[in-house]
Amino acid sequence: MSLVGAGPGDPELLTIRAVRRLQDADVVLYDALVSTAILKLAPRARCFCVGKRAGGDGVPQAAINRLMRRSARRGERVVRLKCGDPFVLGRGGEEALALVSDGMAVEVVPGVSAAIAAPALAGIPVTHRGVASGFVVISGHAEDAYRAVVDSLAPGSLTLVVLMGLAARCAIARALLDRGWRGRTPAAVLRGASRPDATTWIGTLRDLATMSVDDSDSAPGTIVIGDVVDIGASRNRF
Amino acid sequence: MSLVGAGPGDPELLTIRAVRRLQDADVVLYDALVSTAILKLAPRARCFCVGKRAGGDGVPQAAINRLMRRSARRGERVVRLKCGDPFVLGRGGEEALALVSDGMAVEVVPGVSAAIAAPALAGIPVTHRGVASGFVVISGHAEDAYRAVVDSLAPGSLTLVVLMGLAARCAIARALLDRGWRGRTPAAVLRGASRPDATTWIGTLRDLATMSVDDSDSAPGTIVIGDVVDIGASRNRF
Repeated sequence: MSLVGAGPGDPELLTIRAVRRLQDADVVLYDALVSTAILKLAPRARCFCVGKRAGGDGVPQAAINRLMRRSARRGERVVRLKCGDPFVLGRGGEEALALVSDGMAVEVVPGVSAAIAAPALAGIPVTHRGVASGFVVISGHAEDAYRAVVDSLAPGSLTLVVLMGLAARCAIARALLDRGWRGRTPAAVLRGASRPDATTWIGTLRDLATMSVDDSDSAPGTIVIGDVVDIGASRNRF
Repeated sequence: MSLVGAGPGDPELLTIRAVRRLQDADVVLYDALVSTAILKLAPRARCFCVGKRAGGDGVPQAAINRLMRRSARRGERVVRLKCGDPFVLGRGGEEALALVSDGMAVEVVPGVSAAIAAPALAGIPVTHRGVASGFVVISGHAEDAYRAVVDSLAPGSLTLVVLMGLAARCAIARALLDRGWRGRTPAAVLRGASRPDATTWIGTLRDLATMSVDDSDSAPGTIVIGDVVDIGASRNRF
């Protein structure tokens, strides 16, 4: 079976190998955010949504693993299709371990991660000579996890990219300010990157701490914090 | 013109959009590590190698920009093809700014970065619940840059991924050990990821500090440092 990255949303940002695996698939287990345009690339497959949306319930991980094992044992070509890259903040490692420990051969097909693509599509390079020589990617989903990262990082030293952080945007911004990050640090909120409904918000870390967004909008969001955001802004001025 | 990510090496890890841009291209300016198999996807194009290899000289950035401008003004479809993702540690931001400030429209086509794909293809998830809730990507090319990152990061807190760090592997490992990282922290050196000649070395941070590699081997390398490396190792034991 194949653990496949679906990229940030636009079907043209799938890899060639991902498309081939979908074309050949008998069964596709996909995350909630994967679009129907992408699922259409798997015309022969029975497709099951197994992912959960922010705040909602999903199919328990044990049940996903059971589904995958059962199909694979029948000799079916199974694709587990995950948003972005399967091994970036998506529990892909846990799924792979469970399957391998069960004796199954697992192929990993890397994908374009929104952590890099969302800023790139907004003209923001996550690294830039003289501005940021590296970047950090974290999830905003679990408070103890992002707090630990914020505490372990010197303020302003690297570009910070937060996935699944829209709901916690204010708490994350306040944690960074408390840690000593400058209030004027540029920040961007990129929603629905690579999709037709993509939006870009650009402000400062202080703005982010009080930012309100339409939480009924279910587009995924990527937050970028750091001076590289100004490069995207200056690029867009031309 | 299009600034296109070529992915980690295997042509199947190009995105659909990257393949389309190559098929339509009149001119392709490519990095030294881009393979001939990928260049064959641009049958109509005049292809120029403009990238530099580790330690070697390349075409100066100003000359690359001049070439791109000249071709774009002639109405030619120009692809600037960069390894991995164009905005990760590859000066893509500088190239884009130079072109945009010159009045040109620049499209960015994100790619699969070796920073994520190299570990994934070796079975190493850069994040894993309870092990690492985030990861840092830096370049090992410039000593002052990686030293600044090492100093700004609490030891062992995040997975550390180093691109272009093979030559500096010993110095980077020693800098981390001096900063307080455990000598037994798992480390991996992944060379030629996604290529037929891919190799995986797994050891500890202490081993990395004294590791010798065949420097005549020109395959690109990705270094991963952190407890997630053990997950790849345990997966490979099955």
